[in-house]
Amino acid sequence: MKLTQNLYGTSLALLTDLYQITMAYGYWKSGLTEKQAVFNLFFRRNPFQGGFTIACGLEYVIDFLSNFRFTQDDIDYLATLKGNNGAPLFEKAFLEYLKEMKFDLDIEAIPEGTVVFPQEPLVRVKGSLIQGQLIETPLLNIINFQSLIATKSARMCIAAKGESVLEFGLRRAQGIDGGLAASRAAYIGGCTATSNVLAGKLFDIPVRGTHAHSWVMSFDTELDAFKAYAKAMPNNCVFLVDTYDTIEGVKNAIKVGKWLGEQGFKMAGIRLDSGDLAYLSIQARKLLDEAGFQDAAIVASNDLDEHIINSLKQQDAQITVWGIGTKLVTGNDQPALGGVYKIGAVKENDHWDYKVKLSEQAIKISNPGILQVRRFYTDNLCMADMIFDEENPPQGINTIIDPLDGTRRKNIDESIAHKDLLQPIFKKGQLVYQIPNIHQIRENAQKELNTLHSSILRFTNPHQYPVGLEKGLYDLKTHLIMKLRHLE
Amino acid sequence: MKLTQNLYGTSLALLTDLYQITMAYGYWKSGLTEKQAVFNLFFRRNPFQGGFTIACGLEYVIDFLSNFRFTQDDIDYLATLKGNNGAPLFEKAFLEYLKEMKFDLDIEAIPEGTVVFPQEPLVRVKGSLIQGQLIETPLLNIINFQSLIATKSARMCIAAKGESVLEFGLRRAQGIDGGLAASRAAYIGGCTATSNVLAGKLFDIPVRGTHAHSWVMSFDTELDAFKAYAKAMPNNCVFLVDTYDTIEGVKNAIKVGKWLGEQGFKMAGIRLDSGDLAYLSIQARKLLDEAGFQDAAIVASNDLDEHIINSLKQQDAQITVWGIGTKLVTGNDQPALGGVYKIGAVKENDHWDYKVKLSEQAIKISNPGILQVRRFYTDNLCMADMIFDEENPPQGINTIIDPLDGTRRKNIDESIAHKDLLQPIFKKGQLVYQIPNIHQIRENAQKELNTLHSSILRFTNPHQYPVGLEKGLYDLKTHLIMKLRHLE
Repeated sequence: MKLTQNLYGTSLALLTDLYQITMAYGYWKSGLTEKQAVFNLFFRRNPFQGGFTIACGLEYVIDFLSNFRFTQDDIDYLATLKGNNGAPLFEKAFLEYLKEMKFDLDIEAIPEGTVVFPQEPLVRVKGSLIQGQLIETPLLNIINFQSLIATKSARMCIAAKGESVLEFGLRRAQGIDGGLAASRAAYIGGCTATSNVLAGKLFDIPVRGTHAHSWVMSFDTELDAFKAYAKAMPNNCVFLVDTYDTIEGVKNAIKVGKWLGEQGFKMAGIRLDSGDLAYLSIQARKLLDEAGFQDAAIVASNDLDEHIINSLKQQDAQITVWGIGTKLVTGNDQPALGGVYKIGAVKENDHWDYKVKLSEQAIKISNPGILQVRRFYTDNLCMADMIFDEENPPQGINTIIDPLDGTRRKNIDESIAHKDLLQPIFKKGQLVYQIPNIHQIRENAQKELNTLHSSILRFTNPHQYPVGLEKGLYDLKTHLIMKLRHLE
Repeated sequence: MKLTQNLYGTSLALLTDLYQITMAYGYWKSGLTEKQAVFNLFFRRNPFQGGFTIACGLEYVIDFLSNFRFTQDDIDYLATLKGNNGAPLFEKAFLEYLKEMKFDLDIEAIPEGTVVFPQEPLVRVKGSLIQGQLIETPLLNIINFQSLIATKSARMCIAAKGESVLEFGLRRAQGIDGGLAASRAAYIGGCTATSNVLAGKLFDIPVRGTHAHSWVMSFDTELDAFKAYAKAMPNNCVFLVDTYDTIEGVKNAIKVGKWLGEQGFKMAGIRLDSGDLAYLSIQARKLLDEAGFQDAAIVASNDLDEHIINSLKQQDAQITVWGIGTKLVTGNDQPALGGVYKIGAVKENDHWDYKVKLSEQAIKISNPGILQVRRFYTDNLCMADMIFDEENPPQGINTIIDPLDGTRRKNIDESIAHKDLLQPIFKKGQLVYQIPNIHQIRENAQKELNTLHSSILRFTNPHQYPVGLEKGLYDLKTHLIMKLRHLE
């Protein structure tokens, strides 16, 4: 699969913030090249004011890390950078060190398609501080965006209530692989196909498309245009009916649909791309049904999102396929998931020294530890998640405490069915994970959504799924904060 | 320069919507491979409720088109696609035709960095209908995103009133080249540097970066961390002071700044990344000044945008450098520019048959013609733009008419200084344009912004710059609409 360095014809080792390299240099100069650390990648709020997030992007991360190395070209570029006194920023010996560096981190991660919640580590990185730092930016770039879009896609599909949602966003996507990665994430989140042919080729996603307004405009009449299209592609006919007048367009589609039937083919449907989609789809359905095209799909597009789909459903719009572009591939109302990557612990001699970053806002204080997430289930629905330190796993009864409100606690019996979400991906830089294919990931996402109570799935004021820190971890965090604030 | 196919290690010919290829097939099957058309690429509203847009992305477009060809691999993939009867979607002879196809269009475009307005063609494509169609999606993808971000960047820089704006957005950008292209566009729009090292390498943009919270957390105390950093990189010291307590952090930075001075180096500044940036920057400035660090920069970051910069300026915040991430590289409040690509004319025998696409909304009715934009200037400020049909250039007095309100008209004397904005880029597929370097493009953008009256630059209810259709073109468009609506 071509995803990162193999898709790009260039090394991506420099796809990072400069401060990661200046810090790496700092550690190297300070003799701390062997210093070990743990980083946890997590986000603080579900996107779109929703109740859940779909983890996505891990296969890209694996591809990126598997190919992570500095080329001579990268080194030559770094050698040109200068500090504020005009001298080179980096010593040659450090650049040599970078060039010889081999990726050897331990990485654990939550598989793609899994439902995840704020505060939970999606990726955990253990090993040299330097390498952990260098990969921070690309990991955030990949996971933030793909998780955002997979979640948006899932929301669109929930609104469509099982009807097909097609992703049409390439022309408005943020850059070339802003489009490619969005097509992948949208498929994982539940879309049935994309218009993006390269995404289809690269990722094995079904592709869909028929014709645009320009096709109709380049013939003398709409009827001529539909006829010509039907002759050329009788097995792929969804007529776009709103170039001039939608209802007339439907009538022209019906005429050509009848001709197609006579030739032994089937008109797949029509598409509405403007106007009052509720009214027009109901009128179109009537006309199509009366003409014997009960099976013909009515595809609708035009700046749709989950809320407009909801509203159209409430108006009994007769739309059977939803084509969504801009508002899906950009995230629209929230174009970035605010994932962060924080140090959980640093090794001092042979023990882990746990770390928190302070903030006046409780939500911005990071969690210390080598973190794992345990999910508990009752009746096949997940009921709570516990974040705990793998070096100090819980004993006996599990008490979880809301990291933002210490008075919200929950006791969970050990005997309740559960599973740990983070799985080993790399051990000392060696891939130990069996990468599922994209269809398996998509199925996994569907199954995962079925483990959520409907109150978590709703768009308005969704139920806040309980995620807590295991009591020992909570107490440790409190202690570290108090110590840093000189309160104990 | 590696921008598209040379950056990606793969053919990007399939980076398009499937319907472009099914339409190409339709034209081919209908014997219309030689059919000529003109397409105009334009947008309908300035982004961010602003008064202007900066055109950006042309160099990517040139790179894409210069490398446009279908590989055997692309053809093999297309051969796998099937219609709704299970038969192949495309005949082999058509796939052969695609494989042999050589890019040979005429392309005119407005240079990057130029200020542009709604309705104006940024790119004009003339030549075979098939090729014009195939390149629609990638052209929109590239121009929409980069123009969006260059415009956002210009707005941030206007708010910063000449102070330096740094782009830090890679970790929250939409995909890998969502980050790369954003760094490029942000620089063109006015940013002085990026944190994105690969963008620095690929595009020759200055890069900046020092250290993160994690650096501070991986030492026992903040002071130890600052000292270690100063020893390692004495010529690149901007201390991040808010890991634990901002004011204490400033004091620690001052201590290490003094040490740096003793070593013959200069502390470049401090960075604030949380808390009340107005209050903290004023306190920090006092402490720094009292300690003799009047020259030390105060860099601020944390979810900034043009409105927050404005507000901080009004509060007399003592910030001298603005670090902006998420809200710059995603567009934030508007993550997509809604550019479209519409047929202006189709050749019938030897004459151009002018085309419009109807809509119930006047703003969505396209403009017919082989369009050019003429900009008029008085006292070095631009005063109005005229969109006209190059095949029927205006004669005598220029009357321009608002396409959305026929009663808004303006007469412009021919003698007024003017220039035509679209320039030849490709002739019959051959590049005829001298591509400026990125620094020249950035300078061009600065000069262009200086041609705008301040009322157009403001964020709240900006003045609407007059853009009209030349009277002959307006009358032609009206005639075509009336004819299609069977009103004449």
